[in-house]
Amino acid sequence: MKNPPALEQLIAALKVLPGVGPKTAQRMAFHLLQRDKKGADKLARALDKALTQLTHCQRCNTFSETELCPICADEARRQDQLCIVEMPADLMMLEQAKCFEGLYFVLMGRISPLDNIGPKDLNLDKLLPRALDGRVSEVVIATNFTAEGEVTAHMLSELFKDRGLAVTRIARGMPVGGELEYVDLGTLAQAVYERRGVS
Amino acid sequence: MKNPPALEQLIAALKVLPGVGPKTAQRMAFHLLQRDKKGADKLARALDKALTQLTHCQRCNTFSETELCPICADEARRQDQLCIVEMPADLMMLEQAKCFEGLYFVLMGRISPLDNIGPKDLNLDKLLPRALDGRVSEVVIATNFTAEGEVTAHMLSELFKDRGLAVTRIARGMPVGGELEYVDLGTLAQAVYERRGVS
Repeated sequence: MKNPPALEQLIAALKVLPGVGPKTAQRMAFHLLQRDKKGADKLARALDKALTQLTHCQRCNTFSETELCPICADEARRQDQLCIVEMPADLMMLEQAKCFEGLYFVLMGRISPLDNIGPKDLNLDKLLPRALDGRVSEVVIATNFTAEGEVTAHMLSELFKDRGLAVTRIARGMPVGGELEYVDLGTLAQAVYERRGVS
Repeated sequence: MKNPPALEQLIAALKVLPGVGPKTAQRMAFHLLQRDKKGADKLARALDKALTQLTHCQRCNTFSETELCPICADEARRQDQLCIVEMPADLMMLEQAKCFEGLYFVLMGRISPLDNIGPKDLNLDKLLPRALDGRVSEVVIATNFTAEGEVTAHMLSELFKDRGLAVTRIARGMPVGGELEYVDLGTLAQAVYERRGVS
C-alpha cells in the first residue's frame, strides 16, 4: 500500500522547502488537500508568478521585478556608501532601522562550506565592478555575526584591500536595552574589547 | 522599501503551510528563488496535479486517484473488520506493520476544538453507512492516544453503541523494546492498569 502517485509527488515536491523532511512534507500535503485547497492553488499560482516575474536588480542584486530596484533607482540616496548584506531580509531590516542612506549590495548568501556555498556563489563578479564604479568611497560590511557571516566578512575585506576604498564592519556590542546580567558572555566580552572613547 | 509584489505574494502563499510563519515563509521563498528554481517549478506542478487528480476513496475516504483505493478494491481482505484511523499516514503505518487484514476508514482528522474541527468535519455521514453495511462485525478504533484522538475515540464508541457491532480500541502499553526505567510514567501506569492475563 502506497500513497497515490499524485500525492507522493506532492510530498516529494514539498521536500524542496528548506527544513522540510518527509514527515513534515506529508503533514503539509494532507493539510493542503484536506483543509486548504484554495491555499494550495494560491501557492501554485504564486510560485509560477514569482518564477516568471522576479529577477535580480542589476545594481544591487536583490530580488526585483524591475531592472533597477526602488532603492538603486532613488537618486537621492548617497552614492558613496555601499553596504554589503547577505540577504534581502537584512537589507529590509536596515531600511526599517532608518540608519543608512547609501546603497546596498545583496550577496544572496554567505560562505557556507556545509551547504556547499563558496565565494564563487556570492555574485562577486557583480559586486566588484559595482564597488569600483568610481563613486563608492566606503564599503560597509553588514554580514551576520555568525561563523559563516564572519568568514564572508573576512573574505570581503580581503577582496577590497588595496583598492583605495574605506572598508568598515558594523559594530558588535551590547544590544540596545540590554542588561549585562542577561546578555551572553561572548557578546559582553566583545562589547568590552570594542569599547569606544566617550567625549 | 518593501519586497516586490510577486515575492510578497509568494511569501504570503507559503504561509498557508501548517507551522510556517512569516520568517520561515520568507526563508523558504528566498531559498526557492535563489537556490532551487527547478524545485519551485516542480512544487507548482505537483500542487496543480494533486488538486486536479486526487479525490477520496468512496469506501474508506483516504486519498485516492481512483474511485476505490487499492485496499478497498482488494477482495482478499477481511470484510468483517473495519479499522478507523485519523489520517492516511496512520493507515500506512498499520499496513507497514502487517498487523491487520481488514478494511479501513480514514476520518481525515480528529476532534480538535482548538482547530475548530468537530464531529461534523469527520465524515461520519460516510462512516456510518460504511460500518453498517451488514458485512462489518467489528469496528477497531485506532485513533491516536493524544487528547484529541481519545476524545474522537470516545465519540466513535458512543456512535456505534447499540448498533450490534463489536467496538474495540487498539491497546495502550509499553512499546516493544521499551524499558521501564525510561518509559514515561503515564504509559507505564496504563501498561499496569491494562495488564493482561498470561496463559
